[in-house]
Amino acid sequence: MAPAPSPRPLPSILLVSLIPVASWFVIRPLLDPSPPLPALYASLGFSIFAFLAALFLVPALGPTFIRANLKGRDLLKVYSDPIPESQGLVCASIYILLLILFIPFPFSTTVASLASSGGNSDRGLTDAASASLHHEVRKLSVYLSSLLSLLMATMLGFLDDVFDIRWRHKVPIPLIASIPLLMVYYAEGGNTHVVIPLPLRRIFGVLVNLGPLYYVYMSLLSTFATNSINILAGINGSEVSQALIIALSVILNDLLYLPWPVGFRIPLHLLGNQAEVEVGGTWHAGMAYGSSELVGRHLFSLYFMLPLVGVCLGFMYHNWYPARAFPGDTLCYVTGMAFSVVGIQAHFSKTLLLFFLPQIFNFILSCPQLFGVVPCPRHRVPRFDPETNLLSPSKTLFLKPPSRLASFVLHTLATLRLTELTVHPTTGNILEATNLTILNFFLLRLGPMNEKRLVQVLICTQVAGSILAFTVRYGLAGLVYDGDRR
Amino acid sequence: MAPAPSPRPLPSILLVSLIPVASWFVIRPLLDPSPPLPALYASLGFSIFAFLAALFLVPALGPTFIRANLKGRDLLKVYSDPIPESQGLVCASIYILLLILFIPFPFSTTVASLASSGGNSDRGLTDAASASLHHEVRKLSVYLSSLLSLLMATMLGFLDDVFDIRWRHKVPIPLIASIPLLMVYYAEGGNTHVVIPLPLRRIFGVLVNLGPLYYVYMSLLSTFATNSINILAGINGSEVSQALIIALSVILNDLLYLPWPVGFRIPLHLLGNQAEVEVGGTWHAGMAYGSSELVGRHLFSLYFMLPLVGVCLGFMYHNWYPARAFPGDTLCYVTGMAFSVVGIQAHFSKTLLLFFLPQIFNFILSCPQLFGVVPCPRHRVPRFDPETNLLSPSKTLFLKPPSRLASFVLHTLATLRLTELTVHPTTGNILEATNLTILNFFLLRLGPMNEKRLVQVLICTQVAGSILAFTVRYGLAGLVYDGDRR
Repeated sequence: MAPAPSPRPLPSILLVSLIPVASWFVIRPLLDPSPPLPALYASLGFSIFAFLAALFLVPALGPTFIRANLKGRDLLKVYSDPIPESQGLVCASIYILLLILFIPFPFSTTVASLASSGGNSDRGLTDAASASLHHEVRKLSVYLSSLLSLLMATMLGFLDDVFDIRWRHKVPIPLIASIPLLMVYYAEGGNTHVVIPLPLRRIFGVLVNLGPLYYVYMSLLSTFATNSINILAGINGSEVSQALIIALSVILNDLLYLPWPVGFRIPLHLLGNQAEVEVGGTWHAGMAYGSSELVGRHLFSLYFMLPLVGVCLGFMYHNWYPARAFPGDTLCYVTGMAFSVVGIQAHFSKTLLLFFLPQIFNFILSCPQLFGVVPCPRHRVPRFDPETNLLSPSKTLFLKPPSRLASFVLHTLATLRLTELTVHPTTGNILEATNLTILNFFLLRLGPMNEKRLVQVLICTQVAGSILAFTVRYGLAGLVYDGDRR
Repeated sequence: MAPAPSPRPLPSILLVSLIPVASWFVIRPLLDPSPPLPALYASLGFSIFAFLAALFLVPALGPTFIRANLKGRDLLKVYSDPIPESQGLVCASIYILLLILFIPFPFSTTVASLASSGGNSDRGLTDAASASLHHEVRKLSVYLSSLLSLLMATMLGFLDDVFDIRWRHKVPIPLIASIPLLMVYYAEGGNTHVVIPLPLRRIFGVLVNLGPLYYVYMSLLSTFATNSINILAGINGSEVSQALIIALSVILNDLLYLPWPVGFRIPLHLLGNQAEVEVGGTWHAGMAYGSSELVGRHLFSLYFMLPLVGVCLGFMYHNWYPARAFPGDTLCYVTGMAFSVVGIQAHFSKTLLLFFLPQIFNFILSCPQLFGVVPCPRHRVPRFDPETNLLSPSKTLFLKPPSRLASFVLHTLATLRLTELTVHPTTGNILEATNLTILNFFLLRLGPMNEKRLVQVLICTQVAGSILAFTVRYGLAGLVYDGDRR
């Protein structure tokens, strides 16, 4: 049997070259004259540190995890050496610790006064906008409640790994982790109004107060964000690459709302919108059109997304095929919670959900198995052929004839070419069906491929989904919403 | 070999009778007319729920802990059945979750407006004092940073249990957990001044700004509070009973500062103070003399201490001799952090340290072993004699002759009757010494006793320490501090 691959080499040149860069970004806000968005500099610096810490600590702590029985066999490999499991815990710890150390940069009065004395006025926002921006960003309690939710998600994810909770029991776990978020949202008298799309305004008006339903929506968002990444798992690099691309998409969206020093135009008419959009220039603050509240929200989102990209990149280096480290549920929990935190606190949950298109597809496809209509085996990962090193769709077996509902669902899915059925030649009963996941769907449509190729297909799909999301958000959304987006 | 005792019976009458009481306390602040300190009612209700949850969940989750390999043998028993270990995690989870659910009561604008419309003015505080009290209590970010530190302490304590970190490495762990506390203290521009005792004021003035040293002090406080409980461990009920009595002492101290509807006097002249103190009555707000800031601080402390007493009581029922559940490091971490949180945030860290007298004694006594002057075995718990069921002092052996420093230290301690030495009859070299802990000291002075008796002695010592602490704080402190205590 071939042995497990040795740990990936750690380029120490990266350490030597990136530490000074990261340090400069962290120190820069404290130097006079302070830059226009000082905390963003520090956030960038911390994100580089996050990358380096994940890159070096994940392999360093591997043996400790194996000793503590946090290990797993890679099911899709010929070797059976133990691989450290739950190392998402390392990523989550680095991530949260850096987010805590970051607190003084956006929220301390000392740093803020330094920044305002640096003279922002000529560099993007006027004094008034800058002052109100600081006020908006100073929502320390919102930031802290987000950290609490992230830490609870990490804790619960790790408990899930240690106690190996059954999946039916763990679906509602993210609800618990979202409680701090909801409590503080309530205590701060958070907005529970939603903007109604244009065609429905004659019935509901422009704004509708969802009240308690809004809290249900927020907690379901975190449950969905967490579990939808968790069920699109099983092959090397799948969890972390999804998180990485969603985080990058959110960052790209955030950047549109920042006060850029240069002006540029986005040709939105190509996407079906009525007018062109001019981004940047003094006062414009990107898509925020000078609204310091919107700038503040998207800065908040960047503070959470940039270091997430850092840890994900660092971890991906070791989780890439063939994986030297497994994320465990912990990584899915913390990344899922990070996305719901920014979606909720920065008020772009609908846009956020658009970045989850592959996850939504996978979830809907999985529903018949998740809700017990079709039998669901313990693992639904693709089947591995050690001879060819290729993956092919795994199957669920019907030990007893399927119910009429199951038959109907599976035949419909087969007609849509989302699954493949093996039917009994005489009775017509379904004997086997490929498992209902997006990974099996890829293998079904594109043919058997190796694991590395499959994760690349997944990444391309995720990127394509994000491109579609941007098209919908900034093109088609103009048809059902006017500028009044809250 | 005798089997381990079966789980303690759970009186369901307690559940039936206490749930309505707890619910009433939680709902009471929302009813009109609202009580004078509405959030305190809710806190009491949550504390009863905390007690019930710990009482019922600790045994219910025992088998799960054993399955996840979180188990230990009771070293001081004749049976070797596995006992669930690290169940402090259950207590910590209940505690933190309830503290999160409690957020809306003191911090929500809705509840606050209900409370103020209820008409506090005639019931202890004037309107102005009540308004400023709400302002003081509304320090949501301070509360959240405390929760973050508690959650980090829980997480790190559990990681310590899972990864079994060596004690030399784990001493600084509480430093990490205190980072959120320090960061938010800094971001909020926290006070770093200390009041100088009267005799030293001619040199230093009334107030001295410690600046960064104050942060060092705060982090050392959390390290001390956590580790000092953790090293006074090893017998059934020792960790949780220390925590319980310290928490009760803090609560008693807090109650002195609340605006009681009845006036009473404390005969402080008996303790050496100059004047009698009148507590209670409109405007007086206890020892706070109408300072709503002091009332707010001690309310803050009560919000953390009351549910801690709840979980500790519930857990103690199962941890009492012979123990059916072990706390693990998690309980020491979370309780230690809870004490430092209130000491730091409610600004009575010196008073708090007075409640740690037995721990300070134990720490100083342990120093020669902790810092490697005297050899330190893996366990320093008393020695168990299965024949008599009695404990006697355990000993550390000198395989090679002790250093001159070690000889000097041990001979000094032996003179003070804190240890007992076995010396070589001819060379005079020390061959054995009883381990330097307060538990061995008790056994040395009071003779062998059984485990239950020893923990009772520990509890009595802790209570005596608290009585001494109150005497010093409200008697002798008057000689070195005037009323200007911050």
